[in-house]
Amino acid sequence: MGTYAISGAASGICAATADRLKREGHRIIGIDVAPTDIVADLATPEGRRHAAERVTELSGGSLEGVVSGAGLGPYCDPEPILRVNFFGALALLDDLQPLLAKGTEPAAVAISSIGAIYVDVVPDQAAPECLDACMAGDEEAAVAAIRKRNGNDSYCMAKRALALKVREYAMSWGAAGIRLNALAPGSTETPMLDKIYDTEVIGDAVRAMPIPLGRTAPPEELASVICFLLGRDARFVHGAMIHADGGSDSIVRPTHL
Amino acid sequence: MGTYAISGAASGICAATADRLKREGHRIIGIDVAPTDIVADLATPEGRRHAAERVTELSGGSLEGVVSGAGLGPYCDPEPILRVNFFGALALLDDLQPLLAKGTEPAAVAISSIGAIYVDVVPDQAAPECLDACMAGDEEAAVAAIRKRNGNDSYCMAKRALALKVREYAMSWGAAGIRLNALAPGSTETPMLDKIYDTEVIGDAVRAMPIPLGRTAPPEELASVICFLLGRDARFVHGAMIHADGGSDSIVRPTHL
Repeated sequence: MGTYAISGAASGICAATADRLKREGHRIIGIDVAPTDIVADLATPEGRRHAAERVTELSGGSLEGVVSGAGLGPYCDPEPILRVNFFGALALLDDLQPLLAKGTEPAAVAISSIGAIYVDVVPDQAAPECLDACMAGDEEAAVAAIRKRNGNDSYCMAKRALALKVREYAMSWGAAGIRLNALAPGSTETPMLDKIYDTEVIGDAVRAMPIPLGRTAPPEELASVICFLLGRDARFVHGAMIHADGGSDSIVRPTHL
Repeated sequence: MGTYAISGAASGICAATADRLKREGHRIIGIDVAPTDIVADLATPEGRRHAAERVTELSGGSLEGVVSGAGLGPYCDPEPILRVNFFGALALLDDLQPLLAKGTEPAAVAISSIGAIYVDVVPDQAAPECLDACMAGDEEAAVAAIRKRNGNDSYCMAKRALALKVREYAMSWGAAGIRLNALAPGSTETPMLDKIYDTEVIGDAVRAMPIPLGRTAPPEELASVICFLLGRDARFVHGAMIHADGGSDSIVRPTHL
């Protein structure tokens, strides 16, 4: 049984993941802006430092897994979205990597989104200068680039950059014996989805997204994929973007493999 | 406990999958050219018909899962590769779909390959007229198009077409209540990999493929991914191409999500 740090643990997919891992006998260190083991705002350098320091203390110096899942919805302001969903999410992975390196068969999952593929279908949303700044680690340049855009652009860009970082990290993390994958959830029945549905333009776009399975997913159906990726059954799955979307991606990008 | 039909069940990844499902208490109907429950050559219409008829009989008319995994290695002749790895593999899915539609929570997995992405890095290998003929279901046109090429081209094209069909089928299979996914294994320790290593040009290319985890995989590590995709933990995973390659794809296509 291992210790797992999970950001965004207070709600949605990450709460369901924490519940499942607890039921399986693991120890969870939750991180969130809402009440949980560690209350931290990953939008700021101080919040990120606080989270990493407290996880280090509470874990005793080693982790079996990390789920970097804290994220703001596309209805929020572009700037905090980018700070939390990309820079905060990536900082958590960077900061906890040394603890994972001391785990037995460690693994981490970054929660991306089907929104990460949005630029493939609506290239104008790409804000390439923002993506470049994200990949270069220049937070203020990325924020400056996204400020004039809307929340949905920021959300999709942050989730795309996070997934791209997973691929970039695959070699070094693999060499350190840590598996790292990205998850791209489709429409999942979380508080975030409720708010998305209530948001102009974005709500209609998300509602219109085809789902071949004909339904949205309870968060437990994403938690089960995360637990798979964290566990022994995924021992050869590494550096991958795993789509769990009821088939939506296959409709949006039918010739994409 | 359900009944699962598995082609290619006599060796490699599919044999490991059959073993694991049996251990979990399921019933397996194996299909292979080598001795197993149903001996059939999926290169021919007669062999495909025989396989489907026998599975229908032995299953009693319903299936909980199908693994379409029978395939020839890239060291074989281009024509039988295309006939078995694409047309035979797809025929099995088509023919068994009505049995799956009678399952409780049915799911199927088509075994593609990391070779399916080869055309993304070496576009000259694309043989687009072959891919078009595959997607149109014109077996003889596809064979005519691939005849002048080498076995590796045929292998990669067949595995690509199979994965693309999974995406094409996602809507109709989803509507029928059947999940369908493709698996892209990387370097897996099977008899096929041994023969690939012994083959000129292809052997060197496969050996040179970077694997961030620093090792190849025993077939059990692919079987565990297939069992995940067949099971309840993957209830929202549909129409996806799941890469299980130790990170190879992330190196070959770092900006691909």
